Amino acid sequence: MKVSDTGEFGFIDAIKTNTLFDESTVVKGIGDDCAIYRAAIGYDQLITTDMMVAGIHFSSQTTTPFDVGYRLGAANISDIAAMGGIPRQAVVAVAMPKDTEVSYITSVFDGLKAICRTYAVNLIGGDTVTTTGPLTLTVTLIGEVPAGQALLRSGAQVGDIVIVTHHIGSSAAGLALLLAGITDEQFAVCKKAHQRPEPQVILGQWLRQQGATSLNDISDGLSSELNEIAKASKVNIEIDSTAIPIHKSAVQVAQQLGVNPLEWALYGGEDFQLVGTMPAALHSVIAKEESIHCIGRVVSGAGQVILRTADGETYPLEAKGYDHFK
Amino acid sequence: MKVSDTGEFGFIDAIKTNTLFDESTVVKGIGDDCAIYRAAIGYDQLITTDMMVAGIHFSSQTTTPFDVGYRLGAANISDIAAMGGIPRQAVVAVAMPKDTEVSYITSVFDGLKAICRTYAVNLIGGDTVTTTGPLTLTVTLIGEVPAGQALLRSGAQVGDIVIVTHHIGSSAAGLALLLAGITDEQFAVCKKAHQRPEPQVILGQWLRQQGATSLNDISDGLSSELNEIAKASKVNIEIDSTAIPIHKSAVQVAQQLGVNPLEWALYGGEDFQLVGTMPAALHSVIAKEESIHCIGRVVSGAGQVILRTADGETYPLEAKGYDHFK
Repeated sequence: MKVSDTGEFGFIDAIKTNTLFDESTVVKGIGDDCAIYRAAIGYDQLITTDMMVAGIHFSSQTTTPFDVGYRLGAANISDIAAMGGIPRQAVVAVAMPKDTEVSYITSVFDGLKAICRTYAVNLIGGDTVTTTGPLTLTVTLIGEVPAGQALLRSGAQVGDIVIVTHHIGSSAAGLALLLAGITDEQFAVCKKAHQRPEPQVILGQWLRQQGATSLNDISDGLSSELNEIAKASKVNIEIDSTAIPIHKSAVQVAQQLGVNPLEWALYGGEDFQLVGTMPAALHSVIAKEESIHCIGRVVSGAGQVILRTADGETYPLEAKGYDHFK
Repeated sequence: MKVSDTGEFGFIDAIKTNTLFDESTVVKGIGDDCAIYRAAIGYDQLITTDMMVAGIHFSSQTTTPFDVGYRLGAANISDIAAMGGIPRQAVVAVAMPKDTEVSYITSVFDGLKAICRTYAVNLIGGDTVTTTGPLTLTVTLIGEVPAGQALLRSGAQVGDIVIVTHHIGSSAAGLALLLAGITDEQFAVCKKAHQRPEPQVILGQWLRQQGATSLNDISDGLSSELNEIAKASKVNIEIDSTAIPIHKSAVQVAQQLGVNPLEWALYGGEDFQLVGTMPAALHSVIAKEESIHCIGRVVSGAGQVILRTADGETYPLEAKGYDHFK
């Protein structure tokens, strides 16, 4: 059955259940001109919006409809994590071709609801329209952070250490696997990193509580995010390439495909891990955490990122993230 | 010049100025993973999202790029007005074909900024991507209303009067004019109603303060909005067709085009006027207000809308609003 058969209100009826995962903050969910929610006293409000277009941001070859919704939620929740915040409320706008299968779009919403459930995000409203173009989805997410404590990209201080969570480059490795048609189970961790990336909400809050000075999520590649922090903070950042955490599974995929996994880590996006800076005095705290790695330090400078390679050479690391318009 | 020439960051640089019109609530605008703002203590938060697709929601024949942005802002701000709320913060996501002219899209943003300035709404963030389909825009708007006082569509009470603001059907008349190529200056009020509709923010708050019991904005046509109130409130609504306020200019346009202006008032959308209910005791208060008209009353029933025509006949008024999927 296609969405043109159910009509707008039939479609809304099909997706509007199982949308509230923390009712304590919701006054009125789906079904009026606006949704209504309560903000916590003493907290700043965070807002982020992300748009995904079929054929540009995902393809049916590498992404199931469930994962389309899951990744869209992950991208937004990750932006809240990157401020050290708590994700709270989401609205979703969807433009669909009239011949979209209802089963496809309800699966997209199932994926979105699944990640919303995991992070206690309420889906409280939206808009549905038709388009003559590809399926297009916009999620807007509201989060909260204790007043004045949001982690900006402009807070890095000379002397800070640079940290990264978990592993990076795994999502790019997973995409390469999928495009190459490799289904080997031993690489499952990379495939999952691409298909169902986990936003680092808990670590983002933990880093804020520990006293991190800046934070970004890695949506466009490490090189791009580091350059954003360096530029916004008006400092230089020195990175030790041998310290960049790349999962052994991604290294194996890279060997099999004959590429350098460091390229994936530096320029592959959508890992949704966090990169940021902390006072060097916290190095011993970080050293105890398996999921956080020190990869460099902040020095004075005009906003450059310098990479030191395994053989001791240094060169400027350009921001080669994805430019949507080029 | 096309957006593919400026690149993503060049485009953002071109639009990110003149975006804050009430800085008192903004902690951090465009330029980080999230924007940050402060919610007022003692207020509930309102959120609404609206998507517009070129060729579906607007055409270059009837809508300038400035007006595309203006109307998108109006649709969102109107949803806040329909809760009796105060619009505060907006984010905008835009999917553009790569060959979009920079001058076109900056004009769209100029229109959006113009209405944001009028209503002191801050444009604090967004997302920009490319699409192989038509230009697609999503605006998400945050508003506030004193806690517990939002006007839902479910609050109509038996005995209430039904009110409408200003005039309705003017936007449909304006669209008909534009499609017919009629440029007669005497009909300017209808053209403006279609091209730059004004959300009724002040009247929405005034109606809340007076004690309105329910409120909707007229985005899909009066028949559709009245049915939503009747259904949500579990009451019947009786409307006197002769009391429906239609601007004399719309009546003249209808005569010239040989149509019944009541059709535009009942089934034409996008007037962004307000329709709602109030205790009958407030009838004398409303009677003093030129911009508010009493068009009927609320009676007990199962959620129907009954229209009484000029010759005294009554019939059920079906919700024949626009279904985006049909």
